[in-house]
Order: sequence, then structure tokens, then C-alpha cells
Amino acid sequence: MTMPVLELQKIVGVEHVLINDSDKDYASLDRSNGLLKSLPLLVVRVFSQTELIDCVRLCLSRKNPLLIRAAGTGKSGGAIASPTTIVIDVTGLNRIISIDTDNLLAVVEPGVILAHLKNAAMHQGLFYPPDPASQDYCTIGGNVAENAAGPSTIKYGTTRDYLLGGTAIIGTGEMIDFGKQTPKGVCGFDIASLLCGSEGTLAVFTKLTLRLLPYPKSIAACIVYFNDEESALYAVNYLQNRGHRPKTLEYIDAICLKALEKHSKTTLATAQSALMIECDAGFDDGARQEIDAILHTLTPLSPTSYTKATTKAELKKLWHERSLLSEACTHYMGYKLSEDIAVPLGKLVMLMRAVKEMSKPPHLMVGLFGHAGDGNLHVQIMFDKAELAAAAQELCHELLIVVVRLGGTIAAEHGIGLKKKAYLPLEQSATLIDVQKRIKKAFDPHNLLNPGKIFDV
Amino acid sequence: MTMPVLELQKIVGVEHVLINDSDKDYASLDRSNGLLKSLPLLVVRVFSQTELIDCVRLCLSRKNPLLIRAAGTGKSGGAIASPTTIVIDVTGLNRIISIDTDNLLAVVEPGVILAHLKNAAMHQGLFYPPDPASQDYCTIGGNVAENAAGPSTIKYGTTRDYLLGGTAIIGTGEMIDFGKQTPKGVCGFDIASLLCGSEGTLAVFTKLTLRLLPYPKSIAACIVYFNDEESALYAVNYLQNRGHRPKTLEYIDAICLKALEKHSKTTLATAQSALMIECDAGFDDGARQEIDAILHTLTPLSPTSYTKATTKAELKKLWHERSLLSEACTHYMGYKLSEDIAVPLGKLVMLMRAVKEMSKPPHLMVGLFGHAGDGNLHVQIMFDKAELAAAAQELCHELLIVVVRLGGTIAAEHGIGLKKKAYLPLEQSATLIDVQKRIKKAFDPHNLLNPGKIFDV
Repeated sequence: MTMPVLELQKIVGVEHVLINDSDKDYASLDRSNGLLKSLPLLVVRVFSQTELIDCVRLCLSRKNPLLIRAAGTGKSGGAIASPTTIVIDVTGLNRIISIDTDNLLAVVEPGVILAHLKNAAMHQGLFYPPDPASQDYCTIGGNVAENAAGPSTIKYGTTRDYLLGGTAIIGTGEMIDFGKQTPKGVCGFDIASLLCGSEGTLAVFTKLTLRLLPYPKSIAACIVYFNDEESALYAVNYLQNRGHRPKTLEYIDAICLKALEKHSKTTLATAQSALMIECDAGFDDGARQEIDAILHTLTPLSPTSYTKATTKAELKKLWHERSLLSEACTHYMGYKLSEDIAVPLGKLVMLMRAVKEMSKPPHLMVGLFGHAGDGNLHVQIMFDKAELAAAAQELCHELLIVVVRLGGTIAAEHGIGLKKKAYLPLEQSATLIDVQKRIKKAFDPHNLLNPGKIFDV
Repeated sequence: MTMPVLELQKIVGVEHVLINDSDKDYASLDRSNGLLKSLPLLVVRVFSQTELIDCVRLCLSRKNPLLIRAAGTGKSGGAIASPTTIVIDVTGLNRIISIDTDNLLAVVEPGVILAHLKNAAMHQGLFYPPDPASQDYCTIGGNVAENAAGPSTIKYGTTRDYLLGGTAIIGTGEMIDFGKQTPKGVCGFDIASLLCGSEGTLAVFTKLTLRLLPYPKSIAACIVYFNDEESALYAVNYLQNRGHRPKTLEYIDAICLKALEKHSKTTLATAQSALMIECDAGFDDGARQEIDAILHTLTPLSPTSYTKATTKAELKKLWHERSLLSEACTHYMGYKLSEDIAVPLGKLVMLMRAVKEMSKPPHLMVGLFGHAGDGNLHVQIMFDKAELAAAAQELCHELLIVVVRLGGTIAAEHGIGLKKKAYLPLEQSATLIDVQKRIKKAFDPHNLLNPGKIFDV
């Protein structure tokens, strides 16, 4: 294997083939823990679908492993390449080809930034729901590769629910037009759902067709506080057993509330736990009425207080506070590891108890916040000395074991990538993993597409 | 290959291995057009997961093709076996193992009747949305195999959106526990979504875990009439571009309204077209308010009249009329073929025009009704003489070509099965079909699970 530098330069121009370590450095990391840093063989920047297709086919024909990268905001190393892998940077492939109000579809290139798509749809009265915290800089291609989600999954699902179809190159170099243009369709196997969340290991997307929904007529939210840590988690289940289906049910525990107070001089109340609840509706004032109904239903759980957000400014402020949580936890004790897991809704309280028992106060503390409505919590393992990193890592390990024991998943919305590859057999049987390896082979017989992610073949 | 009759009898008892043609006859048909009738090699009735597993493994070890059958309500021949295939009847495998209010899950055996599950969930305040017309007799196993849907897909998605995971036997005889127990989860490839809609060609389900939602606090509906056939279709797009997201948007054209009037002495108004709109909400009176808001939004489209349904009795009556439509069309002219297709929402009017041009009045007429909110229409090709069957069949063929030309799908919710196998290449490229064949091989290397469905390998 020799580096196909000249051929790549012919396709994209000399200036877009990055060979020097300093030029390639930006592609050596994602937003996982920093331990996975690795410089790729080359970085190639493409700016058109044709350039992308030509570069991918060149790499495949030379049997050179390749990885598609855009914003690099993943949290599990999915976008980090091995030293023999060519990274193709698609951030320049960022056209919104259409916001199609007739058919309620968006057609986009993989490098489109999520917030750009969400805004373009909103300006046409349409709604693209997936809402990961990184929405201002992450891209649709990465969202589809990782099946990105966020707070609104409880009502609106994940990226998979919006990926209708698209065009992709598989590991043989062949192009496929997969999927459909309608919410319904059962023509053959569901290739779109299979590719979504496959972390770039099955195909390279050149164009994606996404479903758009009506933009809701009204949005309202509230944050409800409790004087113990468990009530807010209990409320998740309680509300859903009483007919309420909010758009978000975001949990914040006592430590995370404190971290946020310290970090942002927050206006949130000091409490033992909080639940952020947002609703939307297809008619004016519907969302506010639903929030009021929810607050009424919660009365028997004795919340200590609540704040409503019904204006745009109030909503923006509330979600801004929420968006600072991860950063606040990073700074609270100086060091932090975090894990993205989910457990069945009824097991949230058990998980909290188990994880709190693992903490070693005052030097190693565990905080919990996240999308509790989906059973999905982002566990924050905070510590005050660098030497405690190994203990924190050991706690992560124990945590994943507990999660699986509770019937949960080790990866709720951040993927397996490199970071959790070793833990895959904790959750899945050898047979199930073997089936996936055979599927990988069906798409990529020579193991050239993002090799070494999720599992080794 | 010899028939493993004795071994099967040992597993399930002599009385549950059906060998005689008359005994096997019930398994020779589904609810497609009757032309696909075929008697299987044997029918075996199982009543426990152990019996199912043992029978499947016996067939696989003997390299005998097998097909799992329950209610046989499919419409594309997916449940019709070849003369060398053993049918395993799982209607006796019908336990609802749990309606789990803590975790908002249902765990069921594949032979559970959909309505039983829906009712059991409802009695616990929970909601299982998929609502095919056959819900009173179709089973969950078949629903999952075909990715069954219905009117509520526009808001609530298809069966795939509720299949979280389960246990299955693949073609090697190995068992897999696939999926998760939470709405979120990105641990490896999405095997649940892949198996859902694979028409029994990849795995045999022994147990299924389904997501349950909160049962809505309020439900309301209306039927809106228009004095031309296109306005109701135009309204589908119009409403969704104006912030409304109803649970159903069901279209009925003039001929279908007439057929219904004749068949059921309907109380629906005579009109050129109608749209049945249902809404639900998470608080009392929310649904009624949303229906009122929708009626207000529709004013510029000049509906001729409307009827609201807000009480349980009114809702039941409205949906009862809707449920008679297919039967009404069967009787209207004496003979009928029907096709299940979908086109992008903005192409519904073009599809209607194209299909109406294909009709040959007064002996061969085309009616349209169905889940227009998903772009999904059930095209009714009605004719008054048996000799016109070939012309009707030719019209179906032309229709599928037009559907694909409009960017639609030849199978919206009834599967490919045997009926549309020949049309698969109309919609999908040879490369995409090859990929699916390789996926089939990854699960079922000897082609023993429901062979010959969707495509030949």
C-alpha cells in the first residue's frame, strides 16, 4: 500500500490533501476523552459530491481504509482514524439541496450543520426535531452515522426516525439509492435504519433525504424542583402513566444543580433534584395548557417549586442553563469523565442509588443529568486530583456492568466507536456480534470503511 | 429431504402435525388476491416457546424450509408457503407476558392478537399505537414481520417504531437477543429495525419487547367534505405546512364515498372527497381544541361541510364507517383488485389524476382511499365483469410504474411477499437488491427461512 497522494491531489487540488502532521492534527481527535488521539495517514478535503465519490472510490480501489469526518463532535472515537486510514473531510460538502415544503422533505449533503438545517426548515414552517447539544456545529452526516438524538427523543424519536433515504457508496465502490421519500414504505429490508447508527462502517453517504414535520404552533416549558434526588426520577414514570407525553423530561440531580450554580451563577433554584419539561402542540396555547395539566398531575409528588417558561426569551434562558450543565460539571471539581447510558424507565432510581454508592466523597463524586424520559442519563464522574483518573475509570467500568444488569444499554446516544468497543460483549452475545460482522461484510467485504469501530472483523 | 413428521409429532403431539390437504388448507392462503394459493408440506401447531424453538431447529437441521404463520392476514403472500415448506402455526403462542407500567414496555409472544395487546395496554393507561385495519385478528408476530402500520402512522409511526427488541432464531439455528429496552440505544447495528419488515426471511421471533406510550387524555375527530376530488388531498399538505400534526389524515374519493353509501347506508355525506382527521392530546379537551383549530385553518380551502366526533360513540361510529370502505369497494362493481402504494405528499394529486385517467368507465373504475397523511393510498380497481380481470391487472402494473416515476414506493405497508416480487427491480437497483441478498445470507446462509419472499436468492 502506497499513499495515493498524487491521484487525490488530481481530484481535489494540491491544497486540499493534507500531509503534514500539523495540518492533519485537527482530525486526530473528537470530543471523547482525549485518550484516543491518533493522526490519520492523510486528510482530504472534498467540496462536491463528485469529489467525494472519486476520492472514496480511489481509496477503495487501492484497498486503503478510509473514514469520513465532518465536525468531529462525536464522543466515542468514531471519527478518529488509525495511522493507515485516509480521512475524507466533508465539512465543505454542506449544501442544503432543498427544503421541500410540498413533500415535507429536506435533501442535504452530509456536511450540513444541524442548526442550519433546523433553521432553514423553521423558516419554511417545518420542523427537524433531532436536537443533540452540539447542534450548532455538528453535521447531518455525523448525526446519521451515530443516530444522534437529544432531549426531544421521548416525543420525536432519534435521527433514524427522520432518515428516509439517500445515496451512499458501499465498500465495493458501488453506489446505492436507498430508502424512500414517504413516512411509510416496506419495499425490502430497511437499509436506511441499518445504515443510520452504523458509525460509518457500512457506507459513505453522499446525499441524505430527511423527513420534516409541521413546526409546532406553541411551545412551553417548566422546571420543577424536588427536595430529594429520587422524586424527579420517579416523576418520569408517573407522568407517562397518567397520559402525559411531553417533548422533554430532563433530569438534574443535586450535585449537577450545584455545579451549574457555581459555574453560571444560575437562576435555577437550589434543590435536591429538578425536572425540565417542555411541551409543544399543533394549536395556539396548547403547549401552555399541557404544562399546566402536567403541573397539576405532579401535585401528589410534592414538588417544592417550579418556574414556567412560555415566552421565547424564557424558553431560551431555560435551555441555555441546561446547555451549560456538561461544562459546569467539567469545572466543578477540576476533572471529569462522563458516560452515556440508558436503563429502562423504572430502573432509573435503582441506577441512581447504585451509582451514588460508587462515589468516594469528597474527592470523587458522581452526578447525574440527562434525558430521563428515555431512560438516558449522562453520568458525570467528577474528581479533584489527576491521580484519581484510574479510580474514575474503574467506576465507569462498574457503572456499565450495573447498567447491563438493570437491562439497560451501554450506549444510549453517543455510539460505541473505539471508546466502548471492549464493552460490546457485556451487552451483546457472541452470536449477535457475529451476525453484525457478517452484515459488515455484506456492505464492505474488504473492511475498508472506518475499520476497527464498534468491533474488529 | 424426507418429511420429519415423527420428530415433529414428538415435539408437539400427533394432533398438531397436520398432513392431510383438508387440514392444511387454511394455511394455503392469506388476504391477497387468491391467486397465490399453495398448500405447504406440513403444518405444525406450537403452543410454547420451547415447542417453537425445537420445531424450528429441527427443520433447520434437516435443511427443510419453514415459514411462521399466525393469522394469515397479510396482503402480499408473505405467509403463503411453497409445497416443500413446513408451516409453523404460532397462533397458539399468544401470551402477553407482561404489560410493564414501570418501564412502559410490553413483552409478548408472536401469536398475540393486536387488539388484545392494545386493550391490555389501554387498561393500564398505556397506548400501543399501530392500528392496521385487521387489528381485531392480526397478530404481533405478523405485524413485526410486515412492519404493519395504519392510519396513525403520520403521528405515531409504524410497528418498527415500537419494536425495541426480542428473542429470535436465525437461519443457523442460533438464538439472538436483539435490541434494547429503552427508546434510545446505539449499541451496534439496529438489528430490530432490520428484522422488522423482513417478512420472516431473516429470523423467527420467539418473544418481542414493544414500547408503550402514555394513553392520550383526549381524542377527537372530524370528517371534512369537499366539492371536488383534489381539495381533500391538497389539504394534507396544507395543514402540515401550517403547524398541525394530526393523528390521522384519511382520504376518501367520490367513488369510494358512493361505494360506502351503497354498501352501508352510510351516514357520511355525499361529496366529491372527504378527509377524516383525528387528533389526540395529553390533556383534557386538547384534542377538541386542536380539531377546532384545524377546521379554522381549512376555511380557505372551502370545505362544503364537516361533522365532528368528540364522544366515544361518535368516534366509534366514524371509524366503523371507515373500516367498511375496503369491503364496500369489493362489492360496488362485483370485482376488485387493490394496490397499496405511497407517493411523496406533494404528488398525491398527480397520482390521482394519472390513475383516474387509467380507468375505463363505466366498466372499470378506480377509487382511492387511505392514509393520505403518509402519502399512502389504497388504490381500488373495481370492475363489473370477470373478463376485465386482465385489464385490471394491467392497470395495477401501469399504476406501479407511475408510482415509482413520482418518487413513491410500490409497497407502503402491505409488504412485497410474493405478490410484488417481480416489481422490486422497478423501485430498487440491482446493487441494492444484491446487498439485501447478502444480508439475507448473513442471517440465513442456507435460505431456509420463508424462502422465495421479497426476492429469490
